[in-house]
Amino acid sequence: VTGVGSLFDDDTAVTATTSGRYSAEITDRWSIRRGAANGGYALAIALRALRTALPYPDPLTVSATFLRPSGVGPVEVEVEQLRTGRRLAFGSARLMQDGRELVRVVASFTDLAAAEGPSVVHNAAPDLPPPPECLVLNDGFGFGEVSIGERVEFRMPALPGWRTGTRSGRGHAEFHLRFADGRAPDTLALAPLADMATPVVLELGPWASTTIELSVHIRAVPAPGWLRARVSTRHVTGGYHEEDVELWDEAGRLVAQSRQLALLT
Amino acid sequence: VTGVGSLFDDDTAVTATTSGRYSAEITDRWSIRRGAANGGYALAIALRALRTALPYPDPLTVSATFLRPSGVGPVEVEVEQLRTGRRLAFGSARLMQDGRELVRVVASFTDLAAAEGPSVVHNAAPDLPPPPECLVLNDGFGFGEVSIGERVEFRMPALPGWRTGTRSGRGHAEFHLRFADGRAPDTLALAPLADMATPVVLELGPWASTTIELSVHIRAVPAPGWLRARVSTRHVTGGYHEEDVELWDEAGRLVAQSRQLALLT
Repeated sequence: VTGVGSLFDDDTAVTATTSGRYSAEITDRWSIRRGAANGGYALAIALRALRTALPYPDPLTVSATFLRPSGVGPVEVEVEQLRTGRRLAFGSARLMQDGRELVRVVASFTDLAAAEGPSVVHNAAPDLPPPPECLVLNDGFGFGEVSIGERVEFRMPALPGWRTGTRSGRGHAEFHLRFADGRAPDTLALAPLADMATPVVLELGPWASTTIELSVHIRAVPAPGWLRARVSTRHVTGGYHEEDVELWDEAGRLVAQSRQLALLT
Repeated sequence: VTGVGSLFDDDTAVTATTSGRYSAEITDRWSIRRGAANGGYALAIALRALRTALPYPDPLTVSATFLRPSGVGPVEVEVEQLRTGRRLAFGSARLMQDGRELVRVVASFTDLAAAEGPSVVHNAAPDLPPPPECLVLNDGFGFGEVSIGERVEFRMPALPGWRTGTRSGRGHAEFHLRFADGRAPDTLALAPLADMATPVVLELGPWASTTIELSVHIRAVPAPGWLRARVSTRHVTGGYHEEDVELWDEAGRLVAQSRQLALLT
């Protein structure tokens, strides 16, 4: 599956209505609980509308501020074009549902294949056994109404402590991930996937967390195949915590970096 | 100097004009080159307007997307209130100059003094000699029209390689910083100060860099005194690089985390 016919593409499709407005549907296939969609999935719908409206194909910076939970049902995206230059185009999007704003997005788009300039990387992709030698996090997990657990597949050298019942106390994890139907990653999917990566704050305590702000930098066009994620949370303060995610592609290149601030609940 | 009468407060003052609109002046005292203001300083003006419009005192998440260079001269800030709840208030701001948008900001505000919840920190403030035992980066530096060099004071155990002429090749630095006039840091100043910290990409090459997007999480109300910064750049790819900044207060608490994506030029 490389795009057309994938659930991610089907479930984030947008239809232009009037100038700068797009209609879409939040399905129940990416839910974090009954009737409530994953924030990265809601963001993907806004990014689809932005990509349709702007002249460059790849999101470069994406900042999403989550105002309200995203419910299953019809939504509308209002796109505002902010500036288009020779290298970058900027836009803002409001994801609306029942007249209320769910998510505010500001993004820059570019053509990453045309990016030129120095490269110096002092970091490396997570050192993991290949996916077939890893454990499948999803196996035997009763997702129930957490339908997003069936959409993204995780392969890990060892199951996380929050899954086996012994929290490690260490806010760090490295694993493979991909869409469960095999859809290849592309630059549009990277910010959503960074948000869909399993949280590591669960290693620190029995908490749920709600994202307030998510910022993602897309650094390269990913090669087809699995992504490797490095996820870390080092500071939980006053009920807030950051979650940092690096995504690396099968060619060993950093393709995205994300950071979010979330509230423990 | 604790606020009133400080240059930072004077030069970021905003005056309400019509509903949701504020006028302000970008002065030539925070310039990165002749006639062009530091982005963190321009952001500070937008944050002042947001703080005036929203019911909570402390920015919690700040995302700024820089559309154009900020010139010295009059500006207007248009504030849009997005949502106000019991714990958080959200707003967006457009910083306008001569009818063109310079910076788009989306922020959440809260009352950080009232933040309650778990705290687990797996990190520590930079281990530095006290400021009187450090070198003053600013001493003997001919700032010329880079007036921001006179506004923020840096104390370092050793001068950086880009200053002494031998770039270290390592995108990492730790140092003390404060407003040069002694104004105490507060939550409003943290996002601007994170952007004003000296960049470490200069250790990797003779580049200038232009910020595209800056995201800051304000984590605690800082104690008066110096801040300690930890700055790192680990990935320069296709001419883009991230810069991560941690700011710690004199009480040894993490008070802000920032990340920006910038373009080498």
